[in-house]
Amino acid sequence: MAEMVNVAVDAMGGDNAPAELVKGAVEAVNEDNRIKVFLVGRQEEVNKELAKYTYDPARVEVVHASEVIETAEPPVVAIRTKKDSSLVKCMKMVREGTCDGMVTAGSTGATLVGGQLLVGRIKGVDRAPLAPLIPTEKGVSLLIDCGASVDAKPSNLVQFALIGSIYMESVMGVKNPTVGILNIGAEEEKGNALVKETFPLLKELKEINFIGSVEARDVPAGVADVIVCEAFAGNVLLKTYEGVGMTMLKLIKKGLMSNLKSKIGALMIKPTLKKTLKGFNVEEYGGAPLLGLNGLVVKTHGSSKTIEIKNSVLQCIAFKEQKINEKIKENMSNNGKEKILPEG
Amino acid sequence: MAEMVNVAVDAMGGDNAPAELVKGAVEAVNEDNRIKVFLVGRQEEVNKELAKYTYDPARVEVVHASEVIETAEPPVVAIRTKKDSSLVKCMKMVREGTCDGMVTAGSTGATLVGGQLLVGRIKGVDRAPLAPLIPTEKGVSLLIDCGASVDAKPSNLVQFALIGSIYMESVMGVKNPTVGILNIGAEEEKGNALVKETFPLLKELKEINFIGSVEARDVPAGVADVIVCEAFAGNVLLKTYEGVGMTMLKLIKKGLMSNLKSKIGALMIKPTLKKTLKGFNVEEYGGAPLLGLNGLVVKTHGSSKTIEIKNSVLQCIAFKEQKINEKIKENMSNNGKEKILPEG
Repeated sequence: MAEMVNVAVDAMGGDNAPAELVKGAVEAVNEDNRIKVFLVGRQEEVNKELAKYTYDPARVEVVHASEVIETAEPPVVAIRTKKDSSLVKCMKMVREGTCDGMVTAGSTGATLVGGQLLVGRIKGVDRAPLAPLIPTEKGVSLLIDCGASVDAKPSNLVQFALIGSIYMESVMGVKNPTVGILNIGAEEEKGNALVKETFPLLKELKEINFIGSVEARDVPAGVADVIVCEAFAGNVLLKTYEGVGMTMLKLIKKGLMSNLKSKIGALMIKPTLKKTLKGFNVEEYGGAPLLGLNGLVVKTHGSSKTIEIKNSVLQCIAFKEQKINEKIKENMSNNGKEKILPEG
Repeated sequence: MAEMVNVAVDAMGGDNAPAELVKGAVEAVNEDNRIKVFLVGRQEEVNKELAKYTYDPARVEVVHASEVIETAEPPVVAIRTKKDSSLVKCMKMVREGTCDGMVTAGSTGATLVGGQLLVGRIKGVDRAPLAPLIPTEKGVSLLIDCGASVDAKPSNLVQFALIGSIYMESVMGVKNPTVGILNIGAEEEKGNALVKETFPLLKELKEINFIGSVEARDVPAGVADVIVCEAFAGNVLLKTYEGVGMTMLKLIKKGLMSNLKSKIGALMIKPTLKKTLKGFNVEEYGGAPLLGLNGLVVKTHGSSKTIEIKNSVLQCIAFKEQKINEKIKENMSNNGKEKILPEG
């Protein structure tokens, strides 16, 4: 039997905790027998949810944590003072090696801070990027970094390119993934100071399949497998993606209800439209991994439901079995000097 | 009779030049008798297009320009060497006061460079921002800056907030427009170094109705009338808007053609869907004004068609009649020390 993949789930984080968190974790356990989950949170509340489901009890463990970090709390203070919070306990379990990874729908700020302070970075990694998968016409692209390291330096972006490339190849199975740098024009001389300094460094990097600058306009069409960017720009891209999608959907629905003919038409197209829009929903793809840490930390939306939690837990399998962190370590110590390919 | 609004139109710039440019200019002339256009470009080609239409000949003048600046040319070189290009000639006409404003669908780079070098900035304006109107659920918002001044300083963003506020109030008729700063979280302590430094300056600025940080996710819903941002982030937001819109439309169309039932439904909803999507199309709102210059420079999409050109030409009327540049001048010399309200 293959080794178990142990995943800590922050049962108290997010708008739908603990119900959706517990349900998602149980569904992951039932879907894949390599998974064991540790549900971390207020024992009584978690057990009450668990009682609703059938599962292999050997692969679900409840770990009591008396405190909860709220979204509005200042991240650093929360991480330092709430030692018995579900989030801090999850992180410690990853740090100590009890768990290979963890999933939280709680405070983004506390997750980013805790990731650096409690889980800790892989040796050689200067900044840990948050890297969500976003839907495109062709499938998905990895957006790295998307909110973890504002005001990053060129050397950080070079590491993001390496880490992102390894992730897309090993976890997502994309052979020789294309890497583009987010820019405001397609030409090499365009961009801000950061992009102009980073571009030649990426061009020289033999470990990646660099295709040059990519414009935000072409990202939804699937212009590159890995989109390298500084956190602020990446966050703006991701959030605009979400916002435009939501607004268009709302406007289309409203438009369709405006007259009888289109109301009838709307009934006929509903299943197809729903399927299409679901495929282009940022939230469908599980959470965003915070990469480059001593273990996988997956941050999902605060509003995450079962499906997202389940997919985030399942992400940890490929992460462990494909030895992503070992590959990142090799590449970091090697640091662009010699070609080390991720194992196909 | 009110004073004429003289507008130079770069008849040779963009993918659809000169046909759509000439047609758009003529339509503006026919729609509003305050407009006089100067069609700048290769005389023979322009006249050939003009021959197709009926218009008041006293309000359409052709100005010959033998050269054309191509999109791929390095902007600074192009502006300096192609003295007889349609773009350079338009800019000189604005600088000299022959025209109140100009419209081009040509090279963005050359337009930005030429704007600074040839048209020149209003005294006190340190950087001239490019500020497109983008569609929202509530109407439109002004995104300022969106590609003109990468790596801007806090003082630049403060000026953008003032200029954007004046524009929205005087040209778009929004009373006491709300101003937000684009950020990666709603809290004051969030953001990169630039946003953190700019935030308190905007908070102190009595001339504007500052509402704090706004997230890209809420921009499509119409969270603020004026969105202040550094050019790189603004450009990413704008381009993502366009890209997600295009991709969603493509996917919806493809989905609707996938089975008979939805094909029939699609026929019934087509007029309504078309109307909805048209209202949420970035290109519908005429071009993006490059503000803070000695005259209005409107940059439209390279792929602009008649409607966009016409709307861009018509923009110049409010710009002149509302004395936008005089208001900007007053506010710049005043520079945040005393409240000077734009005239209602």
